[in-house]
Amino acid sequence: MNYRMNKQVSITVIRRIPKYYRHLTELLEKGVNRISSQELSNLIGFTASQIRQDLNNFGGFGQQGYGYNVEELRDELGKILGLDREYNAVISGAGNLGHAISNYKGFKEAGFNIVGVFDKDPENPRHSNIEKLDVKPIEELESFIKKHNVEIGIITISKKYAQEIADIYVKAGIKGIWNFAPVDLKLPKNVKLEDVRLSESLYTLTYFIQETVE
Amino acid sequence: MNYRMNKQVSITVIRRIPKYYRHLTELLEKGVNRISSQELSNLIGFTASQIRQDLNNFGGFGQQGYGYNVEELRDELGKILGLDREYNAVISGAGNLGHAISNYKGFKEAGFNIVGVFDKDPENPRHSNIEKLDVKPIEELESFIKKHNVEIGIITISKKYAQEIADIYVKAGIKGIWNFAPVDLKLPKNVKLEDVRLSESLYTLTYFIQETVE
Repeated sequence: MNYRMNKQVSITVIRRIPKYYRHLTELLEKGVNRISSQELSNLIGFTASQIRQDLNNFGGFGQQGYGYNVEELRDELGKILGLDREYNAVISGAGNLGHAISNYKGFKEAGFNIVGVFDKDPENPRHSNIEKLDVKPIEELESFIKKHNVEIGIITISKKYAQEIADIYVKAGIKGIWNFAPVDLKLPKNVKLEDVRLSESLYTLTYFIQETVE
Repeated sequence: MNYRMNKQVSITVIRRIPKYYRHLTELLEKGVNRISSQELSNLIGFTASQIRQDLNNFGGFGQQGYGYNVEELRDELGKILGLDREYNAVISGAGNLGHAISNYKGFKEAGFNIVGVFDKDPENPRHSNIEKLDVKPIEELESFIKKHNVEIGIITISKKYAQEIADIYVKAGIKGIWNFAPVDLKLPKNVKLEDVRLSESLYTLTYFIQETVE
């Protein structure tokens, strides 16, 4: 994977890769084997020149006059994203959002195995519809992570417990945290963080609605 | 609101405003009345000069030697984001994610009223824990939106129905769509769109985990 020699790839480009990956996966499902950067452009909405430039960052998969081989390109981008293998993940916070994530089939299909769900209050009857998984108490979280080779910790617990959970994740040796709590977590540099800011996304929408109205 | 005279505000700045708003709300809750751009910087992680520049876009709320009045700044940014009033919203898709959003107290507190939840299969017993709301059939969606002055349409339905729902939203005169389905919706320009890409967020995390490991 010679793209790793080129460490200049910006975060902006990185964040576009999952979008390419999604569209290429859909093309494959439709039986499309080959696509030009212009056709990709029509589909994704980036310019053809932007697409060529983006993909060149990772070694240039396209061939002049042929375009891209959809399966090859998808597999390469999948490798870049680390999707060529499976990950064990745990969820802390068995509320509605924890349910939604633990039951979402798409994550399982993409190689993410939710192996445990934890909560401050595991006996709460509202937690009963986590499919096939018992909700366990937070006290067992650290040893569970170590025992089950868990690499990803998901935080869907209320914000007042989020840092406490993150600290347990770090102590247990987790590699990345996917955080839904509206808190800026403090983490050591070797633990990667990806925040999902639902309220901030919604407020961006109302900003643009306002813009239209006035 | 004289900031509207300055239409050059970039989308990048806009997307930072909800983050300021969240931190200022937390400061207010803690009883903090006044803050310097340097203190805001320590809290939010943007540089003090970036913060001054961002806020100057909207009319410059700070005073030399005093800093920012937290409540005033929060209220102004809230107005900019359109959070100084309430919005009626509907959800299409009564699965786990629809549950999570309809039950999330933070949205209600911020002025978003989920007035209806709709599904292709409203009788599904798994939809029973949408609190205080009956799940209604999609056939009633359009007339419901018109009747209840609904401005925001949320899509948590599976991707194969997402465009169909969006078309109903548009036809019924909705102003903005908050979309969780992994689909690029086709919408007229006057309808605003904000996508939440959960898988893409997760794949960005695995990218960075990979980076660390190798």
